[in-house]
Amino acid sequence: MFDYKLLAALAAVVEQAGFERAAQVLGLSQSAVSQRIKLLEARVGQPVLVRATPPTPTEIGRRLLNHVQQVRLLERDLQGQVPALDEGGLPERLRIALNADSLATWWGGAVSEFCAEQGVLLDLVVEDQDVGLKRMRAGEVAACVCAAERPVAGARSLALGAMRYRALASPGFLARHFPDGVEAQRLARVPAIVFGPDDLLQHRYLAGLGVEGSFVHHLCPSSEGFVRLACAGFGWGLVPELQVERELAGGALVEILPGRPLDVPLYWHHWRNGGELLATLTRHLQRATLGRLVRPAD
Amino acid sequence: MFDYKLLAALAAVVEQAGFERAAQVLGLSQSAVSQRIKLLEARVGQPVLVRATPPTPTEIGRRLLNHVQQVRLLERDLQGQVPALDEGGLPERLRIALNADSLATWWGGAVSEFCAEQGVLLDLVVEDQDVGLKRMRAGEVAACVCAAERPVAGARSLALGAMRYRALASPGFLARHFPDGVEAQRLARVPAIVFGPDDLLQHRYLAGLGVEGSFVHHLCPSSEGFVRLACAGFGWGLVPELQVERELAGGALVEILPGRPLDVPLYWHHWRNGGELLATLTRHLQRATLGRLVRPAD
Repeated sequence: MFDYKLLAALAAVVEQAGFERAAQVLGLSQSAVSQRIKLLEARVGQPVLVRATPPTPTEIGRRLLNHVQQVRLLERDLQGQVPALDEGGLPERLRIALNADSLATWWGGAVSEFCAEQGVLLDLVVEDQDVGLKRMRAGEVAACVCAAERPVAGARSLALGAMRYRALASPGFLARHFPDGVEAQRLARVPAIVFGPDDLLQHRYLAGLGVEGSFVHHLCPSSEGFVRLACAGFGWGLVPELQVERELAGGALVEILPGRPLDVPLYWHHWRNGGELLATLTRHLQRATLGRLVRPAD
Repeated sequence: MFDYKLLAALAAVVEQAGFERAAQVLGLSQSAVSQRIKLLEARVGQPVLVRATPPTPTEIGRRLLNHVQQVRLLERDLQGQVPALDEGGLPERLRIALNADSLATWWGGAVSEFCAEQGVLLDLVVEDQDVGLKRMRAGEVAACVCAAERPVAGARSLALGAMRYRALASPGFLARHFPDGVEAQRLARVPAIVFGPDDLLQHRYLAGLGVEGSFVHHLCPSSEGFVRLACAGFGWGLVPELQVERELAGGALVEILPGRPLDVPLYWHHWRNGGELLATLTRHLQRATLGRLVRPAD
């Protein structure tokens, strides 16, 4: 069998983003952690980590992490049956990647009951909806909420429904830039707000209006910050309807062109052999997202 | 003089987090970008990039990026006087690192007027308040809001005031775990919410109550998600007062132990030779943070 002390060292360095913190978590000296990584590399015959800040797994490192993640989930099932195997008696942790907008809206309400009942702690990792899947592939997370449907090898994907976005701005922004009403062609020349380089919602919205090419924009990689900038009149941008019910009702934000929502489907990716806890959460999510996300039948 | 085509390639690869996007932004082929980086490395005699995903600058790479950032700010001043030098006629961009909680609360309202008046677009980078300064040192940003006072070489820091945090939880969470009132010693054994490995606010709060050592916690690296999880009863945690005025007024969140705020001072770090735009923003922030952040005199 593999030497799991070495693999646990690799997982700790990646998850804790450094050797020092990994050593703290493992209760080892930093040089002991370093030794374990070197020994692991000697065994597999190639580097498992890129020594950057933070350290990142190599291709082979990612495959090993993926394996560690799956073994951990299987161990949990066994611990339920053979409690003496459990080393710490600490609550279980589930590491899950999800997009910032889900975390800023429906996730907490949908999952709180599950976590309280199961006594589970969450390690949440925020990733843009189009790139979260790479964390699954890297074996760093047990599951992931993202916009891509196709599962990675060894995993399944489940359609959860869609988040509905609306293109919004403050009344002050619209009055300043569009005193005579919004013209689609001019939208590309007034500031938009974009979450980050992977956020193509504003591009898709403009393309839907027949506006192609680049447009001026602020970059704001925070869901809450995005809404604050929109309310403060920095620019227009696509915001989940769920996140701004109060702002829409109170008039702090208005739709720039009425009746043009953009629905982004979300999928739940989870390991096929991910153990009973993950299967329970998957069943729970199927129910709990009803009424929170838009389904094709709605 | 330096060859700025090469330096611009380095800056684009780091800022765009990859060769492919850097090539798009520069309007070059990916191999041309790669060639420029190699030529730069041949000139300086050592690697400027760690070829990880995303690529990260080496020590010498960081010094070069720092230089590029300062040159760009100086160019901006000159372009105001010699408009013909301006290549694109695009609005200026300011790249600024700040902590998620500032972005989720006071930042937008404090800076909107400045951006609208100056026609400036923001590239915001979210970094934990204790680590944002590394982006300054890396030369990747023009300025930074963080909790560390000491400026990096070539920069100045300005005290903006403090964010006031309160330890909050939902009434349901408190009723479930503390039916007879909150006991400090038991706080470490019920779930807390922690923003990420660099967030030590919960540790400091517990230490202030005389509770040392580790405690169970969820990890949630999103300001808005943090509040949503707290409202949904996942755990207790320290939240900026500014962010939850409505939740406190409406009773969705309550202070776990009354009258124990934690103030986190924030500093504005900016390059000493950062040009007129940055100096104007610095003056603007001094006024605009009044009433938004807590000052010693308040």
